[in-house]
Amino acid sequence: MEQDRRTFIQTVAKSGIAISLATGSAPFVITTRAAEPEKKLGFALVGLGSLSTNQIAPGLQKTKYCRLAGIVSGTPEKRQKWKAQYNIPEQNIYTYETFDKIKDNPDIDVVYVVLPNAMHGEYTVRAAQAGKHVLSEKPMEVSVKKCQEMIDACKKANRLLAVGYRCQFVPFHLEMMRIGREKVFGPVKAIEASFGFKIGDPTQWRLKKALAGGGALMDVGIYALQGTRYTSGEEPAEITAFETKSDPVKFKEVDETINWHIKFPSGVMANCTTSYNFNGLNRLFAGYETGWAQLDPAYSYGGLEGKTGKGAMDFPQVDHFATEMDDFAQCIMQNKKSKVPGEEGLRDIRLLSAIYESIHSGKTIKLK
Amino acid sequence: MEQDRRTFIQTVAKSGIAISLATGSAPFVITTRAAEPEKKLGFALVGLGSLSTNQIAPGLQKTKYCRLAGIVSGTPEKRQKWKAQYNIPEQNIYTYETFDKIKDNPDIDVVYVVLPNAMHGEYTVRAAQAGKHVLSEKPMEVSVKKCQEMIDACKKANRLLAVGYRCQFVPFHLEMMRIGREKVFGPVKAIEASFGFKIGDPTQWRLKKALAGGGALMDVGIYALQGTRYTSGEEPAEITAFETKSDPVKFKEVDETINWHIKFPSGVMANCTTSYNFNGLNRLFAGYETGWAQLDPAYSYGGLEGKTGKGAMDFPQVDHFATEMDDFAQCIMQNKKSKVPGEEGLRDIRLLSAIYESIHSGKTIKLK
Repeated sequence: MEQDRRTFIQTVAKSGIAISLATGSAPFVITTRAAEPEKKLGFALVGLGSLSTNQIAPGLQKTKYCRLAGIVSGTPEKRQKWKAQYNIPEQNIYTYETFDKIKDNPDIDVVYVVLPNAMHGEYTVRAAQAGKHVLSEKPMEVSVKKCQEMIDACKKANRLLAVGYRCQFVPFHLEMMRIGREKVFGPVKAIEASFGFKIGDPTQWRLKKALAGGGALMDVGIYALQGTRYTSGEEPAEITAFETKSDPVKFKEVDETINWHIKFPSGVMANCTTSYNFNGLNRLFAGYETGWAQLDPAYSYGGLEGKTGKGAMDFPQVDHFATEMDDFAQCIMQNKKSKVPGEEGLRDIRLLSAIYESIHSGKTIKLK
Repeated sequence: MEQDRRTFIQTVAKSGIAISLATGSAPFVITTRAAEPEKKLGFALVGLGSLSTNQIAPGLQKTKYCRLAGIVSGTPEKRQKWKAQYNIPEQNIYTYETFDKIKDNPDIDVVYVVLPNAMHGEYTVRAAQAGKHVLSEKPMEVSVKKCQEMIDACKKANRLLAVGYRCQFVPFHLEMMRIGREKVFGPVKAIEASFGFKIGDPTQWRLKKALAGGGALMDVGIYALQGTRYTSGEEPAEITAFETKSDPVKFKEVDETINWHIKFPSGVMANCTTSYNFNGLNRLFAGYETGWAQLDPAYSYGGLEGKTGKGAMDFPQVDHFATEMDDFAQCIMQNKKSKVPGEEGLRDIRLLSAIYESIHSGKTIKLK
């Protein structure tokens, strides 16, 4: 609560809302704690698929600094359903054709792009051009070039851009970062990180190269890649990767199962696995000079478990999307760059590209 | 108990002890179940280090078909201590110099070689030449050539040779084999296997190349390698490996931390890690078409835990060494090749050599 209060005070202060902090008297503080933030930022969701429906919209209801203000969808039935369910005003509801008119809507502060990967770029650029801040789901896009266009467009429009790396706001993952950064168990020695699941419906966009850009690696392997980076606190120096495909029909267009190996500049190594064809891998492990730490499950929307050689980690389960969106809202209020900006998303796309390049060339890829 | 009885009956029957199995009446069966085996094979332990002291000798007390009959040690104090503790007759106690006289000792049936890796060959060959069956600790030796010499010597002497792959007799690992073989969850898709620990005393033989042949990989990585083989039921087609060394003083002579990647002929891939420089990795995971299975801890002397997507595995904790030695004793009694013969040990040494070769060459090694 103390943390919440401090954050809130900071937020309203820096956002320019006129509150005198000079007195700091107890009654003032109590009043402030009980109050809602003066302004909740209006979020418009672009793409009303299962992630928006089951995670992001419910997550928005748990935020402190955000509200579900608008929607963008090409499906009339979805628009009607959401309008009724979330009491969304008609003027805040868009189709992909009318989307650019969002620039005239002061009720929308942030556009959250929840479309298939290969559409993140177009809608991020259009949102920025409409003067909106943008939160893009991960992976940021399907190529480094697209990511750069997104960064450039937001910069040009003087709007903030962040990528939906929800794990970076979850206590268990923050603890992995802290253990590494503070050398709680001394320096990191090695990392293992894996995430995969058995994908269902063979007709879904995730299995289409044009929309997804890639398969398991782009979709869930990216969590393991992120994990190795923030657990080591380093950027990969070399990557070697391997692919196997046991179902070339279902996975005709995208990767099914990939192993990759990272060497970090300090010599720390990481072994990673991702797959769309079996369940059970959902883990982030690190061995240190004098101990170890592991999250398993590590990347699910909830129910994470962590332990170290000293025992179980004791952290609350938070709503990953609410936490992520509240952080971005605070960044906007404070005009402060997100900890997961476009540059962070681009970095991963560059690394994912190196993994594919290693697979195709059969060689170790040295990163610059 | 039914299983025990059947095994026992089979054993005494095939070992040539005259018991009529024709009647099969209840009184006969009860008598047989209560009785001790007619003959327990006499084991002589060569090398009285911590493994013999803390695991193998206590394990022998729990066997049904074995007894601690003799010892071979270069240390007078150890010989005295063991003689008193285990009531070993003076004529069954040898030094490395007098070892070959074991050929005249009918009380010793099996020599269990528990010496540093690079001494397994010499003592296996001498034991075979003395007419004894041989159980060699893992890794079998430090080179394929040495392994072949051991196999040849035992063959020439018409004695059985087995390697101390204790996990291959443990219910949790037998279950991993069964799940793969019977395709309980369909075909294997991918495997992760890792074993490591933080090694203590920097002066121990395990850190000396001449005695150990290698470091973490030879000593504990071999468990993970074995795990990938019996979980997939296949032999590796390609291996790519990577090494890092964060303490070049302590690990001047042997490997500290190694990652390796295996591609099996069917396309199944495995990612593995071993280290002498951190704790926490002790795991065998497999993902299958319709499920997954994991042992963690997988390779400890006891306290193993297994689970699948269906829930926890429910198996008794057995004494790994007692089970391994009883199996070898039964092989001898039945004149039947062990399931972990010299050829199995050699196979792993060839693969470990390929891992080192990959590290040194920076290339993927294709196995023949």
